[in-house]
Amino acid sequence: MLKKIGSQTVNFEKPPSIISTASIAGRKEGEGPLGDCFDIVLSDDLHGQKSWELAEIKIAEDAMKKAVQKTDLTMEDMDYIICGDLLNQCGSSSFAAHSLKRPFFGIFGACSTFGEALSLGAMLLEGGFGKYILAAAGSHFCAAEKQFRFPLDLGTQRPLSSTWTVTGTGAAVISRCGDGPFIKQVTTGKVVDLGVKDMSNMGAAMAPAAADTLLAHFKDTGKSPEYYDVIATGDLGFVGRELLKELCAKEGILLGANLFDCGIMIFDRKKQDTHSGGSGCACSALTFSGHFYKKLCTDEIKKMLFIPTGALINTTSSGQGMSIPGIAHALCIESR
Amino acid sequence: MLKKIGSQTVNFEKPPSIISTASIAGRKEGEGPLGDCFDIVLSDDLHGQKSWELAEIKIAEDAMKKAVQKTDLTMEDMDYIICGDLLNQCGSSSFAAHSLKRPFFGIFGACSTFGEALSLGAMLLEGGFGKYILAAAGSHFCAAEKQFRFPLDLGTQRPLSSTWTVTGTGAAVISRCGDGPFIKQVTTGKVVDLGVKDMSNMGAAMAPAAADTLLAHFKDTGKSPEYYDVIATGDLGFVGRELLKELCAKEGILLGANLFDCGIMIFDRKKQDTHSGGSGCACSALTFSGHFYKKLCTDEIKKMLFIPTGALINTTSSGQGMSIPGIAHALCIESR
Repeated sequence: MLKKIGSQTVNFEKPPSIISTASIAGRKEGEGPLGDCFDIVLSDDLHGQKSWELAEIKIAEDAMKKAVQKTDLTMEDMDYIICGDLLNQCGSSSFAAHSLKRPFFGIFGACSTFGEALSLGAMLLEGGFGKYILAAAGSHFCAAEKQFRFPLDLGTQRPLSSTWTVTGTGAAVISRCGDGPFIKQVTTGKVVDLGVKDMSNMGAAMAPAAADTLLAHFKDTGKSPEYYDVIATGDLGFVGRELLKELCAKEGILLGANLFDCGIMIFDRKKQDTHSGGSGCACSALTFSGHFYKKLCTDEIKKMLFIPTGALINTTSSGQGMSIPGIAHALCIESR
Repeated sequence: MLKKIGSQTVNFEKPPSIISTASIAGRKEGEGPLGDCFDIVLSDDLHGQKSWELAEIKIAEDAMKKAVQKTDLTMEDMDYIICGDLLNQCGSSSFAAHSLKRPFFGIFGACSTFGEALSLGAMLLEGGFGKYILAAAGSHFCAAEKQFRFPLDLGTQRPLSSTWTVTGTGAAVISRCGDGPFIKQVTTGKVVDLGVKDMSNMGAAMAPAAADTLLAHFKDTGKSPEYYDVIATGDLGFVGRELLKELCAKEGILLGANLFDCGIMIFDRKKQDTHSGGSGCACSALTFSGHFYKKLCTDEIKKMLFIPTGALINTTSSGQGMSIPGIAHALCIESR
């Protein structure tokens, strides 16, 4: 039977359950407003490794192991690992998956990757292709700055519209059975590009994609924003959030007090000098795994729309003057 | 009902059908042994664009459009696009997906990407999450050399173990209904790494992953190599193929005359100076879309095991002295 409703949304008959999450965060993230909710906060972002890239691999590996350890399962029980990151050729995910020795699907959705991993994972489980899936996404500030922008040592000044790549990995074990929280619907995003070219303003590049997916979700499901206790975008930041509100208002959808953004939540704007907020695959992955998941488990949040957002750039495309395409995937996650 | 058999394989109850494929190949690929089977052979690998990266995007976009045009469907009918490539941050797939305006899952499995796209696509269809999925993978020799190795203008000499990145895109429309060929089983690979560090010998890096997936497939399904008319690996090349045979022989599986390799088939070793063979996401994607698919449609091949192989490297990991992890996904595709 077809489970599609509308043009971009699927409805799960027997919604998969997120049975555990794990979060390993960098030092700066640990000093932020959500610091207390992460499983592990690193004292050193090198995490005992010789390079930032090796640290990113080790963080991903440790977070995925921790998510499994929190269940009564073993890594052997995971039917698939679905994971991605920001490094070229999904470098940290591939190397982390090597040591975990389970069937692996590498994915790339920039900072929306955790949403893509949970979406695909939920679909494979409901499809009957396994009992348990490990979904994860991570990023590392130092590895990302080096790869996408400038050598850290240069101390380049960052514009106020820029965001700070979050260091860490968020991981989740999803199961065919469980007591919730449940992934009830998934609205898969299209690539949207309104022509923003400024690599220091990714919020502006992603906001149109977030609006597109959000509007599709409401259209496909017939819901309105009030249905949800929380609507949490990935990493639009202060700049992108305002644009999202504007774009949705134009279409008659007013986003109000239940609108949150993981990028705004994870850092203290005044004390931590992160300008527009946090970004990177780890931003929504950590905020969900460390913060929102626990509130869903205690029923403090009953209905959440989680919308990780991604800016699909690379240095070559930006160097060649191309604009920055965005994508966003929405997941309706409910406590029961 | 669980559709898993053994540890890594899933069995489709109502196998999805590949209802069309399209192939756009570069000039050199057009001059090779399979030249006549591609839909379009480019006269210029820039494909009317200003850069190799823009050419790669345009080729991907055109091939995906062509795969849909060959059906009686429109792009609007595609429930998802699942696509990946070799450019940093899956650059060509994201930009191509933008102009096609359908829900998009970006994936990365290096040269195994087409196998990953078909695997995930088949699972989503059987799971009821759509009627039609567009799966594709592409690469471009010039963009890949520039990104992974040396500037082309340097004219660097290539070792005999090296392979030649294939220019082009292979795309397929998979459907819940159809007259075949059918994707009957999928064996998803683990990341395998036996410590090969030579970026000019990717066949050696990938052969252990191909062996691992192949052995898992035979173990999970109880089949032997003789079950298949054709067992086609992605891009092991001459060097990797011999290693695969050795690794399988050690485990008591003898691979014989039905073993093919897309990397060996796509170029003429003697006339085209490609050394160990072809590689890149487009290698298996083009060879399947242009060559094998047609033979499956005419029943000339009845049972095929298609095993795209990928070397999960990036220049940073190799620069930091790390070895090259490999992955391979196997698909049992049958004409009826």
